[in-house]
Amino acid sequence: TLPPSPPISHRGLAYSQPSEFIKPIFKCWQNPYSKQNPQGYINLGVAESVLNKDLLVQKIADIRKEHLVDSNTFGYGDFGGSLKMKQAMSAFFQRHMLKVDHELNPDHFLVYAGTNTVLETIGAVICNEDEYLLLDSPYYHALPMDFARRFDVLLESVPLVLKDGQYHVDFETFRTLLTENKKIRGILLVNPHNPTGKLYTEREIQGLLDLCLEFNVHLISDEVYAQSVLDPSKEFKSVYHYVCTEKDAERAKRLEGLVSIIYSASKDWGLNGFRLAFLYTRNQQILASMQSVADMNLVSRDTMLLMENFYSDEEFLQKFIKTNQERLRKMAAKLMAFLDEHSDVIEYVKPDAGMFVYFRTKKRDIDQVKVFDSIMDEGRVMLAQGRFFQDVNTHWYRCCFASMEWEDLELAFNRVIKALQK
Amino acid sequence: TLPPSPPISHRGLAYSQPSEFIKPIFKCWQNPYSKQNPQGYINLGVAESVLNKDLLVQKIADIRKEHLVDSNTFGYGDFGGSLKMKQAMSAFFQRHMLKVDHELNPDHFLVYAGTNTVLETIGAVICNEDEYLLLDSPYYHALPMDFARRFDVLLESVPLVLKDGQYHVDFETFRTLLTENKKIRGILLVNPHNPTGKLYTEREIQGLLDLCLEFNVHLISDEVYAQSVLDPSKEFKSVYHYVCTEKDAERAKRLEGLVSIIYSASKDWGLNGFRLAFLYTRNQQILASMQSVADMNLVSRDTMLLMENFYSDEEFLQKFIKTNQERLRKMAAKLMAFLDEHSDVIEYVKPDAGMFVYFRTKKRDIDQVKVFDSIMDEGRVMLAQGRFFQDVNTHWYRCCFASMEWEDLELAFNRVIKALQK
Repeated sequence: TLPPSPPISHRGLAYSQPSEFIKPIFKCWQNPYSKQNPQGYINLGVAESVLNKDLLVQKIADIRKEHLVDSNTFGYGDFGGSLKMKQAMSAFFQRHMLKVDHELNPDHFLVYAGTNTVLETIGAVICNEDEYLLLDSPYYHALPMDFARRFDVLLESVPLVLKDGQYHVDFETFRTLLTENKKIRGILLVNPHNPTGKLYTEREIQGLLDLCLEFNVHLISDEVYAQSVLDPSKEFKSVYHYVCTEKDAERAKRLEGLVSIIYSASKDWGLNGFRLAFLYTRNQQILASMQSVADMNLVSRDTMLLMENFYSDEEFLQKFIKTNQERLRKMAAKLMAFLDEHSDVIEYVKPDAGMFVYFRTKKRDIDQVKVFDSIMDEGRVMLAQGRFFQDVNTHWYRCCFASMEWEDLELAFNRVIKALQK
Repeated sequence: TLPPSPPISHRGLAYSQPSEFIKPIFKCWQNPYSKQNPQGYINLGVAESVLNKDLLVQKIADIRKEHLVDSNTFGYGDFGGSLKMKQAMSAFFQRHMLKVDHELNPDHFLVYAGTNTVLETIGAVICNEDEYLLLDSPYYHALPMDFARRFDVLLESVPLVLKDGQYHVDFETFRTLLTENKKIRGILLVNPHNPTGKLYTEREIQGLLDLCLEFNVHLISDEVYAQSVLDPSKEFKSVYHYVCTEKDAERAKRLEGLVSIIYSASKDWGLNGFRLAFLYTRNQQILASMQSVADMNLVSRDTMLLMENFYSDEEFLQKFIKTNQERLRKMAAKLMAFLDEHSDVIEYVKPDAGMFVYFRTKKRDIDQVKVFDSIMDEGRVMLAQGRFFQDVNTHWYRCCFASMEWEDLELAFNRVIKALQK
């Protein structure tokens, strides 16, 4: 027998162990359902929207016809994003995110190759190893991977309180943890919330800002579902809206130093594959630090050229946002009507925004992992599991309703119901 | 006065301090020379090729006409690269890198968004914090940034020995360091070498492989200039060529476990901006680990689609490689003829490969930093400095000869000469 190969590092070995939540996703990707492969898995566990492919195909084709190739994209460009992209984002953020009258400064934007890399990097920039971000639970299952895997940024969470069919922030526990844990460096807000679909109220946002000011910690606001509002009676406004419209000049100035916003082409725009995400912050230390490591998170300039044109066409953006919301609402309505018909086995929380419904099985006499397994193995349907969202309550699941046609979604849910009725 | 903003982390503060070598590069990017901006800086310090823009523009336009838009690229795809890209790379590596008869396995490839991210990640996967890679010096100025900045992988170096106009590996010192420093986990070979343009001889490569086997450490071979051979009497062969053609079956098997190859679209193909790099390794631990963190280094699928078609056209690849070499050789010949005429102020090492000439000023009575400053400030020409390549000898510079027309290159060198003759 030969001597063994040279060892790899401890961290290398640790990377090799994929997070538990990701294993069923890989299983779906290896054997996806289609009419030709009816035994494949129907994937309701990943947040992807295919609802607007027609609009995207048309728009991208139009841009490409104008810009078939541009040799300026061949060489290195501005690390952290082209000026044109930052200008487009300034206009977009002003109109659709912050919803304020004054223009934003393009220098306060950075462009990175994906939301996960922005989260990972800002986590490392704000927290030293084994320091914490504090957030509501349940929370998006990939966050521990994004923050802790390579940079040892830890998450501490406060369970949202479900009352009268809505989730509410538990400020008292936030305060207790901020008081007791001296290693918390920031609050992470995900608004609209993943997985619950909650839109935070102004009172809640101001309450979180109060806590950040009182304990002098950062607020990172992940707003990647901003344009996917489902409830027509509600409106999304970026946390930065409240910074910009703050009447108390001293409070406004202090908030400027501690709020950072994350946005992306992945969710609202259905372009996960393009790896395009944005940081907006006026904190000069965060900007300088993240500018400096932007070389490790560069967007393809080929894609940058395409997307800076995409985001510069305000007329198209408005049409897309409107159409996207109509289509999301239609799918959400169909799914909720279906779930209402099966209230004997499923209860759910009506989402304000996003592309998923967070629901709970009423069958809770058997272990939640067994319920998941029977839906996956027999029903051939993959759901994102509440236990990986660190939900303190059992038997919760997140299902994406935007990643397939209604016909397939209905098929999937009929199978889910069947598995639950067994 | 307001209370200060929340602090950022120690590592965040450290990131903010850019490496010294990068400051003159940013200065060039902010104020680049052109006919319209004659006072701007002429940048000879960054390795970019513009020599084949015509071929690239034509080829990319051709592919784009066929694939104007593909909605399959909108969603998440295979992390670590599409199968089609890996298949194209298998064929390319077999023919142009390894130069072997048998087909390669696409599963041994990973696709990452840039050579720097491959280097950073494989460094972290092979070495724990404060462990070492060992390499020849002078070495590419960005390597300490790539390896140490975020993952604390350190570099120890062995000066190449310049004798009879050629650089030679100092095996004795390699052996001494491997014996004395118990924290060396791998040897990093850059072949063709940056900045000297050296092609390693078979004897040298086998000697490095011997050391890796003896001390049971990895060999990382960065071969990003593989197709840019300048000397027609020499031929590039990947280190993996020698693994595959090894007659001793036991040695071959052991080498398989310790050699990893890095390649990229950036240098030979003039596409720095597209962020497309490749890892080839048969070490299953490295593959599994780097597959697992590929989600942080994803190539835009829009660019992936383009480039998997690009690299699938063998006829085009052969034509490009041939034309590229002809053009590089022509520029190198012109530059060396120019330098020969100015041998009173400059001496240089004839490069075997690459897109730069490594030269030394004969004016060495004043400090090398002052020489650089006068070339930069008065001559408005930026060179990459040997001191940032950790050259043990002073007054060395690397100039790229492929990033502009000869007219501009000649202008730049006339200014360099003028500054040196002062």
